[in-house]
Amino acid sequence: MKESLEIDKQLVALIKEDNEQAVKELLEELHPADIAELLQDLDDDEAKYVVAHLDAEIAADTLMELDEDDRHRLLEDMPNKDIAKHFVEHLDTDDAVDLIQELDKEDQEEVLSHVDDVEQAGSIIDLMQYPEDTAGGLMGKEMIVVNENWSMPECVKRMREQAEDMDEIFYVYVVDDDKKLRGILPLKMLITNPSASKIKHIMEPDPISVKADEPLDEVVLTFEKYDLPVMPVVDSIGRLVGRITFDDVMDEAREQTERDYQMASGLSTDVETSDNIWEQTKARLPWLLIGMLGGIANSWLLGNFSGDVLKNAAIALFIPLIGGTGGNVGIQSSAIVVQGLANGSLDIKSALPQIVKELILAIINASIISLLVFTYNLFFGPDFKISVAVSASLFSVIVFAAVFGAIVPLMLERLKIDPAIATGPFITITNDIIGMMIYMMVCMALLY
Amino acid sequence: MKESLEIDKQLVALIKEDNEQAVKELLEELHPADIAELLQDLDDDEAKYVVAHLDAEIAADTLMELDEDDRHRLLEDMPNKDIAKHFVEHLDTDDAVDLIQELDKEDQEEVLSHVDDVEQAGSIIDLMQYPEDTAGGLMGKEMIVVNENWSMPECVKRMREQAEDMDEIFYVYVVDDDKKLRGILPLKMLITNPSASKIKHIMEPDPISVKADEPLDEVVLTFEKYDLPVMPVVDSIGRLVGRITFDDVMDEAREQTERDYQMASGLSTDVETSDNIWEQTKARLPWLLIGMLGGIANSWLLGNFSGDVLKNAAIALFIPLIGGTGGNVGIQSSAIVVQGLANGSLDIKSALPQIVKELILAIINASIISLLVFTYNLFFGPDFKISVAVSASLFSVIVFAAVFGAIVPLMLERLKIDPAIATGPFITITNDIIGMMIYMMVCMALLY
Repeated sequence: MKESLEIDKQLVALIKEDNEQAVKELLEELHPADIAELLQDLDDDEAKYVVAHLDAEIAADTLMELDEDDRHRLLEDMPNKDIAKHFVEHLDTDDAVDLIQELDKEDQEEVLSHVDDVEQAGSIIDLMQYPEDTAGGLMGKEMIVVNENWSMPECVKRMREQAEDMDEIFYVYVVDDDKKLRGILPLKMLITNPSASKIKHIMEPDPISVKADEPLDEVVLTFEKYDLPVMPVVDSIGRLVGRITFDDVMDEAREQTERDYQMASGLSTDVETSDNIWEQTKARLPWLLIGMLGGIANSWLLGNFSGDVLKNAAIALFIPLIGGTGGNVGIQSSAIVVQGLANGSLDIKSALPQIVKELILAIINASIISLLVFTYNLFFGPDFKISVAVSASLFSVIVFAAVFGAIVPLMLERLKIDPAIATGPFITITNDIIGMMIYMMVCMALLY
Repeated sequence: MKESLEIDKQLVALIKEDNEQAVKELLEELHPADIAELLQDLDDDEAKYVVAHLDAEIAADTLMELDEDDRHRLLEDMPNKDIAKHFVEHLDTDDAVDLIQELDKEDQEEVLSHVDDVEQAGSIIDLMQYPEDTAGGLMGKEMIVVNENWSMPECVKRMREQAEDMDEIFYVYVVDDDKKLRGILPLKMLITNPSASKIKHIMEPDPISVKADEPLDEVVLTFEKYDLPVMPVVDSIGRLVGRITFDDVMDEAREQTERDYQMASGLSTDVETSDNIWEQTKARLPWLLIGMLGGIANSWLLGNFSGDVLKNAAIALFIPLIGGTGGNVGIQSSAIVVQGLANGSLDIKSALPQIVKELILAIINASIISLLVFTYNLFFGPDFKISVAVSASLFSVIVFAAVFGAIVPLMLERLKIDPAIATGPFITITNDIIGMMIYMMVCMALLY
């Protein structure tokens, strides 16, 4: 959409003229995702005007392509009945659930009471029972289901009926008389295998599925592992209850990795460049305050427990080197553990070997770095004793920071706390304080 | 696969007994991704034994599910002819290209010369021309293509022929006589629309596609935006040249975000917890050495330009606070810019407003933090002058670090360098040095 700026101007002009027909024609060819992008640049009244003049299906899909904030602004003054008629009734059940769950509790029931299609309303209510962070919370009810005992021609007839109000179909799910998932029928088979035999003899048996109560991060890993565009969801006794599509999983995967990256960078809530100053401050200040407390604690400890060490100005010169190196090492080892836990390549069961590996790595890195710094100090640094103290401290700080950085996320994972919280400021601050304590103790031991 | 440990033991036992039949039966029901997981726990000879006894299609898919290192170990002593016959001939063209490009240059041609299917070999050679980081580098040639002038029954007949050696089909692509992409035909239409009219009257026209030379990060954003499981790829004049599937895009998206996260954490190459000590050292040591050089430079600058400031031990106490806060602020502002650029929510054109926003945010955060620290120092800190110097320095360091952290990635993006390189150690080190210089200058100005 290189021409989006142009369309944008044209659109605003047409809205001003109240030229309904031209607005419709301009947007007719566009994908809802593109219309949503255009809406972001319009003011509230213009955006509402556009949505009101879209085809109902497109309007509903466009609404769901918007950011939650923008969606909220569009729906704010809209009666609950209109939300039901204009949007909910035209959405797939998984999107409908997302939309309804963004509303206030009292509005939710009212909106649902205005949904005429009883089957759809029932599905939405069913889906709302599942926790948002499970497979059930991501699934929808739109799918084509056939019985294993049907014949192929009967099946095609039933499929035609079910397919009418679905956007896309990639698989047909096969269940037995107890509604238990038995197999899948790739649509390809309709082309290559138009036989008259029973479905159960043609279907691919034992399909890969996820349990409704499976946590979302595992669902993401399952999708990535098996490369399926849609996956069936079953309940605890194997009955087919819904399906999850790859696009929702892709969004979830990006959110997860972005969350990890943000936590590592000291951003405490989900924040974007487009958020306003207040939201940005809320996301950033907490970690900065924790960092500040850490820094103050560090100055207090240094002031009270370093004895006369800091009277020697040459010792202070190396505070940034030692603090910075400890921070860098800690971030590296925690990041690699957090990422391994997130993408499934590291198992909590292999915690001990991982820590041992970090220890060996740390000793190698610590030896190289403390030797290099020692060599530099021999030629350009302060007296010999301080040079020894600096390198001995560096060595200890690197080894401590590496092992600590690996242990903390592993411990959090075992306690079922998101290990990503361990990276970034938390590790840096702790390492800073411990690093200074080590440096001061080594200096006291060697110099006084 | 909760029982994978059990299967693992069973498998090793069966291999020892050389019980071919039982090995085959044990693995028959498994997905290639699951077999690949089992292979990771076997030694080289056992893994080779298993692969040799798998059905050819499954063996080839299993090979491509392995890590590059594991795949390399399996193929190491294999004659090029066998690589062609056992694996390449059974792979989709995009996977075949990946496999061949991992081989040495001289082996590549020899393997290709052993591929009997001339059409497949030709497709592979075509695909190898595209740079790996473009849409062309990710696409495959397996797709069903029909002419817009065919009738539906004719189309179904041709589709049947083409579909035979394809795993899955979700869309049929419609081209004109010049091979230009004109539309798509969702498979759903085969069920709901078995008419006799020409394809061009039934197809969905103007399908969303990507250009073959489009960079991969844009391809990922296009997939996420339009939620399609497969996207057609066209050349510069609109001719259909291939297709990209969502699973390859999901892998690419994860790699991209992991790469950003790793760079932010000071890990310089693609590294995993399972990599050996040497690979891990290679990934970590470079940034630690750069950090070390930064620390040494800092100590040198402090030693030569701070005059008598550090003779006052109370001033040294606040070095960790000022250095740490600058680092935290810089990481926050650079991370949010890097992420915005990566997920498309921030545009390089809005660089100036973004920098102004960072400036305002920084002034808010800087005021709060320097006031809090000043209050603390009034009661518990050293003398009044030093308290003023510390808070004035903190204020300046926060504002500088925030703006600098936003400017650097934006500048890199404009220079077409990956902005992720700006986060993490680079920002921390620069902020550390500048922070100390600011602190020393403020102290000199206020105290001497």
